[in-house]
Amino acid sequence: MTALRFELLARDGAARRGRVHAVHGSFDTPAFMPVGTYGTVKAMTPEELEQLGAQVVLGNTFHLMLRPGAGTVAELGGLHRFMHWRHPILTDSGGFQVFSLAKLRKITEEGVRFRSPIDGSEVRLTPEDSMQVQRQLGSDIAMMFDDCTAWPATHAAAETSMERSMRWARRCRDHYHASPPPGALFGIVQGGMYLDLRERSLEALLAIDAEAPGSVAGLAVGGLAVGEPEPERLAVLDGLLPRMPADRPRYLMGVGRPEDIVAAVLRGVDMFDCVMPTRHARNGHLFTATGVINIRNAIHQKDPGPIDPGCGCYTCRNYSRAYLRHLDRCNEILGSRLNTIHNLHFYLALMRELRAAIEGGVLEAFAREFLARRRGPPGAMA
Amino acid sequence: MTALRFELLARDGAARRGRVHAVHGSFDTPAFMPVGTYGTVKAMTPEELEQLGAQVVLGNTFHLMLRPGAGTVAELGGLHRFMHWRHPILTDSGGFQVFSLAKLRKITEEGVRFRSPIDGSEVRLTPEDSMQVQRQLGSDIAMMFDDCTAWPATHAAAETSMERSMRWARRCRDHYHASPPPGALFGIVQGGMYLDLRERSLEALLAIDAEAPGSVAGLAVGGLAVGEPEPERLAVLDGLLPRMPADRPRYLMGVGRPEDIVAAVLRGVDMFDCVMPTRHARNGHLFTATGVINIRNAIHQKDPGPIDPGCGCYTCRNYSRAYLRHLDRCNEILGSRLNTIHNLHFYLALMRELRAAIEGGVLEAFAREFLARRRGPPGAMA
Repeated sequence: MTALRFELLARDGAARRGRVHAVHGSFDTPAFMPVGTYGTVKAMTPEELEQLGAQVVLGNTFHLMLRPGAGTVAELGGLHRFMHWRHPILTDSGGFQVFSLAKLRKITEEGVRFRSPIDGSEVRLTPEDSMQVQRQLGSDIAMMFDDCTAWPATHAAAETSMERSMRWARRCRDHYHASPPPGALFGIVQGGMYLDLRERSLEALLAIDAEAPGSVAGLAVGGLAVGEPEPERLAVLDGLLPRMPADRPRYLMGVGRPEDIVAAVLRGVDMFDCVMPTRHARNGHLFTATGVINIRNAIHQKDPGPIDPGCGCYTCRNYSRAYLRHLDRCNEILGSRLNTIHNLHFYLALMRELRAAIEGGVLEAFAREFLARRRGPPGAMA
Repeated sequence: MTALRFELLARDGAARRGRVHAVHGSFDTPAFMPVGTYGTVKAMTPEELEQLGAQVVLGNTFHLMLRPGAGTVAELGGLHRFMHWRHPILTDSGGFQVFSLAKLRKITEEGVRFRSPIDGSEVRLTPEDSMQVQRQLGSDIAMMFDDCTAWPATHAAAETSMERSMRWARRCRDHYHASPPPGALFGIVQGGMYLDLRERSLEALLAIDAEAPGSVAGLAVGGLAVGEPEPERLAVLDGLLPRMPADRPRYLMGVGRPEDIVAAVLRGVDMFDCVMPTRHARNGHLFTATGVINIRNAIHQKDPGPIDPGCGCYTCRNYSRAYLRHLDRCNEILGSRLNTIHNLHFYLALMRELRAAIEGGVLEAFAREFLARRRGPPGAMA
């Protein structure tokens, strides 16, 4: 149970600058994990991700168990070798996708049954199945399989859902650690927008860990970024994070916009993932210091300038907005590539800046300036 | 009229090893030009093309005049700057695409009118228009606008078409050289499958050049690879190439399969272009020493080996057939990228081998072995 170690390097208020040491290497926190749904961060090679500064990526259990199948990945030497990525990989549990993507799903105490969106066949996913799949994938960090509480939910519904997640959490821990695992296991705090439920969920996970210290090597906050208003999300973080133990990483799942990441880092979150930079890129939405631009807009048709004059990424150093708009209009693969490089650079550069700001004890000032720039001058959005 | 110089370095039988010196640099011949239809060789960055050994690329006048428009490219500094490619570019004349892609086209002595496949508007393309567009793009090598003879064609039809092409050729030359051009102009020999017409076409082009020596800096063979049987194509090359002057490059347009390139190099051709390696890549057809494999076939599902064990490309060094099949099934951009890298490597490595074989005086033996391997053992195709 020493497959993961969290090193706390600096603090600035509630924010933490750390380093996670996992089986396939280390990554600096606060960390952003690009999402590699099907064993590829869309449009990128592993070498490009390295050059952009990515140190850890996320793989989706739900997608990989359907295509090509976890058994196939295992036969081929595991997900790292399959996708040619030698650094840490975190896999989610598949739970969130079952709840957001699968049709005809049926939830019982055993787990979930649903129709495969690929071929319509019935698929079972229990806590034990999810652990088995994640072991086969060989990820450095596996996530517990949880019951995703819908939003909005009554207190009673959120409580029922959270309590099931906690029963599943013990089954996940027992199964994942029944034989030497390939990595470490993170628990997921649920409880909807109700702080009392969140606290009970946290206590339950810590109790499971206490039975075999280290068996829950990190703690995630799940069930946010599901449509709730920002004040509700921040209230959960404000209430929950001070109670989370300082000795292990804290991961806010699926969040989010750059502003959301800054707000969460200020409150003590260490790890993030989101499809936003890569998905936005393929849709022509590009991040700049002063906001998001839509490269499809006619205003960029003859613009010889880069996406962001202050950006040092490969795309901004070599290509004009006019060229990127042209590639997007022609549905050229290179357009998706160049846009993805830019957006991932934006996120990963932001994480570097956040880490430096914590080290320098100037995070609040950095956050204030960052958010002010992002609001930008009137008309800056195009 | 010194925008292009052809240096003949070695001969082996009819085959030639040379170097073309153009405005934006030099390229070795026999040369293969990857096709960059819309100002991008699909799925590739310019740096990747350089690493693969591409020294010259082809741009499509027809596509670029429709999107983003030649005027826009000119305003943005020309095609080199627009697409971030600093080496030579050859542009075709647009003629072939008008004949193969455009609807409702009307051909007159003036030129061609057709409906834009993008927005249905009427577009005019005359010899002068084509020259103007190619000047605006700023290509190192512009191609004359010609009337593409259909296949099959009667002798009379091929003659009428060829004679129009030759009248257009003079208009092209006059317009392209009316003021200092950005590059050099190549003529295109037409005449269908009729050797007497091919000879007359060649003589006409040489006469145009003789009026202003160097104004026709290279000669292409057009109207092949349009569906004709291989013996007919080779008969045209066998009859025509010995009559072509040795002092300028010879370009066989749109050809073709690796076997076709080897056969044409043996006969003295210096330059090639074809969409086959890039288009095949996106369709999962991958070149190997023993033939083409279809990565979509189930046989590759769990194959941990590379596309071609003898290949040293980035894809074969790092990825399994199983992974490439998975990417293809999931329609992942990285699949198109990795397949394109492999196929372009195959073509560009072949050109390097052909050049070395000519230098070593062993081209015939090389060609024999290459073709024997490509036929491969029974069942080698999958």
